[in-house]
Amino acid sequence: MNDLSGGALSPVLTPFDEEGAPSVQRFVGHCRALLDDDVGLAVFGTNSEANSLSVAEKRSLLDALLDAGLPAARMMPGTGACALPDAIELTRHAVASGCAGVLMLPPFYYKGVSDEGLFRAYARVIDAVGDARLKIYLYHIPPVAQVGLSLALVARLLKAWPGTIAGIKDSSGDWSHTRALIDAFASSGFRVYAGSETFLLRTLEAGGAGCITATGNVNAAAIAKLARDWRNPDAATQQSRLDATRAAFQRFPMIAAMKAAIAWQSGDENWASVRAPLVELSTAQRAQLESALAAIGFRIPHAAKLALRTEALH
Amino acid sequence: MNDLSGGALSPVLTPFDEEGAPSVQRFVGHCRALLDDDVGLAVFGTNSEANSLSVAEKRSLLDALLDAGLPAARMMPGTGACALPDAIELTRHAVASGCAGVLMLPPFYYKGVSDEGLFRAYARVIDAVGDARLKIYLYHIPPVAQVGLSLALVARLLKAWPGTIAGIKDSSGDWSHTRALIDAFASSGFRVYAGSETFLLRTLEAGGAGCITATGNVNAAAIAKLARDWRNPDAATQQSRLDATRAAFQRFPMIAAMKAAIAWQSGDENWASVRAPLVELSTAQRAQLESALAAIGFRIPHAAKLALRTEALH
Repeated sequence: MNDLSGGALSPVLTPFDEEGAPSVQRFVGHCRALLDDDVGLAVFGTNSEANSLSVAEKRSLLDALLDAGLPAARMMPGTGACALPDAIELTRHAVASGCAGVLMLPPFYYKGVSDEGLFRAYARVIDAVGDARLKIYLYHIPPVAQVGLSLALVARLLKAWPGTIAGIKDSSGDWSHTRALIDAFASSGFRVYAGSETFLLRTLEAGGAGCITATGNVNAAAIAKLARDWRNPDAATQQSRLDATRAAFQRFPMIAAMKAAIAWQSGDENWASVRAPLVELSTAQRAQLESALAAIGFRIPHAAKLALRTEALH
Repeated sequence: MNDLSGGALSPVLTPFDEEGAPSVQRFVGHCRALLDDDVGLAVFGTNSEANSLSVAEKRSLLDALLDAGLPAARMMPGTGACALPDAIELTRHAVASGCAGVLMLPPFYYKGVSDEGLFRAYARVIDAVGDARLKIYLYHIPPVAQVGLSLALVARLLKAWPGTIAGIKDSSGDWSHTRALIDAFASSGFRVYAGSETFLLRTLEAGGAGCITATGNVNAAAIAKLARDWRNPDAATQQSRLDATRAAFQRFPMIAAMKAAIAWQSGDENWASVRAPLVELSTAQRAQLESALAAIGFRIPHAAKLALRTEALH
């Protein structure tokens, strides 16, 4: 079962508890609120601090979502890793859990590796998982991973496993690259997601699938609305409003800023925590962020739900 | 017990078997040969493809060395990882096993992180391991990890944990940086290792500890000899000879080239295997490498031992 038709997914932030461990109840509450707003769950992405989590922590968080009754058909967990045994273990678990797809980084420690080496890495995971239900969304994020996926590599992977290579998230930040991916591969059903809602309208107009975007954590309903309404006359206005909100967050390190905003508006200070090597916003940065959000009249629509769920923790 | 006084360590290559799993017997045989040549064991380094191995694979390889009776006092396993729980688990295991030290990469997925974030990452591991025997050698390798360790960060770590922060491997490839580290910190007993034997003589002359170098896998005895003989009149001649050998390998991707050379000279073809995203040398590259090594009359001194041990596998 696959229900990624909504067009907007969020790389779900991972909240931590006082001891620095992932906070399961906060995570489940946030995921439920995102689903309520029609945003799919790309848990364990870059904005989830997923590479700062162990495989065991990620397995446990995924299990917690399923135990809470959240639909695997709306989930696209990130399962790529430097070490293929880790990628295989987490991918196998995601497929066995019924997840709609997995978002897969290439191994990213070695730099300047060849397309042949990256092809073999994906091949190894696909062979080892050996399950026809596996749907891989490739994850192209050269600004962070420094190891990107060329169009030639995407073409080769798609040709080798047309039923398995389902799409890509393009976090290059380069619209011409996203456009080239859509032009080259979308007609065959390959789903191209932009890595930011900045490109949402353009992506949908060009024939792409939507976006998987950090800001989906704080502005979910509005992003999902544009993903539904993109043919409407007010689409450009909606896009401008999304851009203004993103710009307010983007003046700061995004992960820490989104967590600080949730902490502020939900009243649950634990939400501000990040795991090293990331650091929380300073007091001055938090004040600047709060001013910036107030200036555009932005409130996180689901902050109240997170506050409510936090009370249940006590 | 700590016996890293030799001045030369090798980031030990990890051999694989037909199924792509680490080959324990080949690994133990290679490590024993390196120790015979007076080279310490920096297992699980960049040249070990360590970030392509799971924590379980690394624990198991370390246990195999200890089970085979190899001295932990000559070992400096790499234990850094993107996810701090992984770094903590492997570091704890290395310390409990009696290893002389650990070589610790910073978390390397996020780029442009702050010194504060990296400080917290090391702090978290040190606090979690909580063992006075822990000796950390920092691992600075910006060309690969893309996340480096500034002099200010080294100073702060050293001040916070003078008994724990024992040294650094500088794989920047920038002699002026290695020199700056020696000048700033060596007088307090902090051990600065160059990341290549190219800098071995200069490092020792300047007051550094030696080198931890890829080529230690194929040219161990000669590198260890210079580390002992650096005050001798023929030291510069020895250094030139080391440089010529390294240059022959460096024309190719180093890890694949060293493995191909061992496969060639030991007659054990399994040695040529690498794990994705790396790829083996092509047939043409192997022919070029063999010519280049023949041209300088270089043979891997311990290749015969590896051949012998391989026979024992069958």
